[in-house]
Amino acid sequence: MLTDRIRDHAGQGATTVAAHRRRLRADRARQLADLLRRQVLTGGYPDGSLPHEAALGTDYRASRNTVRQALDLLRAEGLVERLPGVGTVVVAQKYPHGLDRLMGLAETLREHGQVSNEVRSMGPVAAPAPVADRLGIAPGADVLYIERLRRLDGLPLSLDLTYIPLDLGADLLAADLENTDVFRLLEAITGQPLGHADITLEAVNADAHSAAVLQAPRGTAVLMLERLTHLADGRPVDLEFIRFRGDRISMGGRLRRAR
Amino acid sequence: MLTDRIRDHAGQGATTVAAHRRRLRADRARQLADLLRRQVLTGGYPDGSLPHEAALGTDYRASRNTVRQALDLLRAEGLVERLPGVGTVVVAQKYPHGLDRLMGLAETLREHGQVSNEVRSMGPVAAPAPVADRLGIAPGADVLYIERLRRLDGLPLSLDLTYIPLDLGADLLAADLENTDVFRLLEAITGQPLGHADITLEAVNADAHSAAVLQAPRGTAVLMLERLTHLADGRPVDLEFIRFRGDRISMGGRLRRAR
Repeated sequence: MLTDRIRDHAGQGATTVAAHRRRLRADRARQLADLLRRQVLTGGYPDGSLPHEAALGTDYRASRNTVRQALDLLRAEGLVERLPGVGTVVVAQKYPHGLDRLMGLAETLREHGQVSNEVRSMGPVAAPAPVADRLGIAPGADVLYIERLRRLDGLPLSLDLTYIPLDLGADLLAADLENTDVFRLLEAITGQPLGHADITLEAVNADAHSAAVLQAPRGTAVLMLERLTHLADGRPVDLEFIRFRGDRISMGGRLRRAR
Repeated sequence: MLTDRIRDHAGQGATTVAAHRRRLRADRARQLADLLRRQVLTGGYPDGSLPHEAALGTDYRASRNTVRQALDLLRAEGLVERLPGVGTVVVAQKYPHGLDRLMGLAETLREHGQVSNEVRSMGPVAAPAPVADRLGIAPGADVLYIERLRRLDGLPLSLDLTYIPLDLGADLLAADLENTDVFRLLEAITGQPLGHADITLEAVNADAHSAAVLQAPRGTAVLMLERLTHLADGRPVDLEFIRFRGDRISMGGRLRRAR
């Protein structure tokens, strides 16, 4: 087994032998599932089907029970399905979203398909204090609020809430928001490139309504991105709260040790 | 109301007036919740209690029903509690984890408390193919596997599965893993700084066993970090699969438009 020779440091006192065995098996299943999920998500099974359980057991030195439990974990995540008489097939794809460069969704996913945006609502609102504060405008000054459900080839990917100062937002009202990233429109309107964005990423369980809009199960894990984007001259111009479906997006990047 | 003047672009045909109203209210509640959650998470309520519902309604131009629904969303996320006769109080804190620089957990959270690591298991294993491939070693060669539950001031933060080539891992077996980041130990063992790490971040619903280990509800959203860390000379030395409790960690960084 994968972990046969692993010294186990805990749980040997108070727990029963049976409970201890269950824990060990669950630990091994998680260990195996993490390795398999990487293969699934990075195209390690190009024909879309996983090897048979017995082959996986040999490859990963894991028992049949551990293999089954690991595959169950991937199934619960919605990454694979187990079809009787066929085996285990890949059913979900996560699209990579870069953490190395500031890009709009259509730009980011250009190679993967067509992004379309359903504008759920759009119009001026008086900026609430936290919005005014971050955009550097007077509290209560008008901002353009835009709410979009974004899809890739028709599949819901994210629900985006966006606030933009009205001097720029006014020009957005007439723009083709259904087919164009706000980033690109802001660069066209201002005649200057974007500069940088401060981002926060969290994992959050979707509330019932957000899940319904994203056509995902209630409680589904969403990758929540808050992003304040600035023009090249430093002016903050775009505050966004974005819920990505966790089962459809992964963020990738490179961190360096030295500053 | 916050969104009174928002033109609504969808849902006016097939849906009934009542369903449309419910949708609008849910949309407004999410909008308000996103603004309040930022205040909650960034210390916007330093005494730990939120303003009264009526005051929030005035501040955010929202109806009492919308305020209540927004506070319910934050409560479901575990960020606030609503105490009868007291009001709404902040009950959770998320700790910031940088995306701008490669750092270990204890380094990252130095200002926030003491990180301790419960080593759940540790020992050599034959490297499964995906591990060998990423660490640049022969398939089946031994690697050190370490599984740790990491806590901040006693509170579970993350469950980390770590693979390290055995020539470096052998020295780790005798090290103080309970109180020291693996990053720091690797730098001490190799005599050189770490260089960079390639990371992937996802939002995933925790399986029952992982949730239990993290002392979180089943299905809780976890921030899943896969990280392959290299030494300054480019050698890959540390492959990790990390599940952060979504309610306790947020990742923050800065993206730039130009490369």
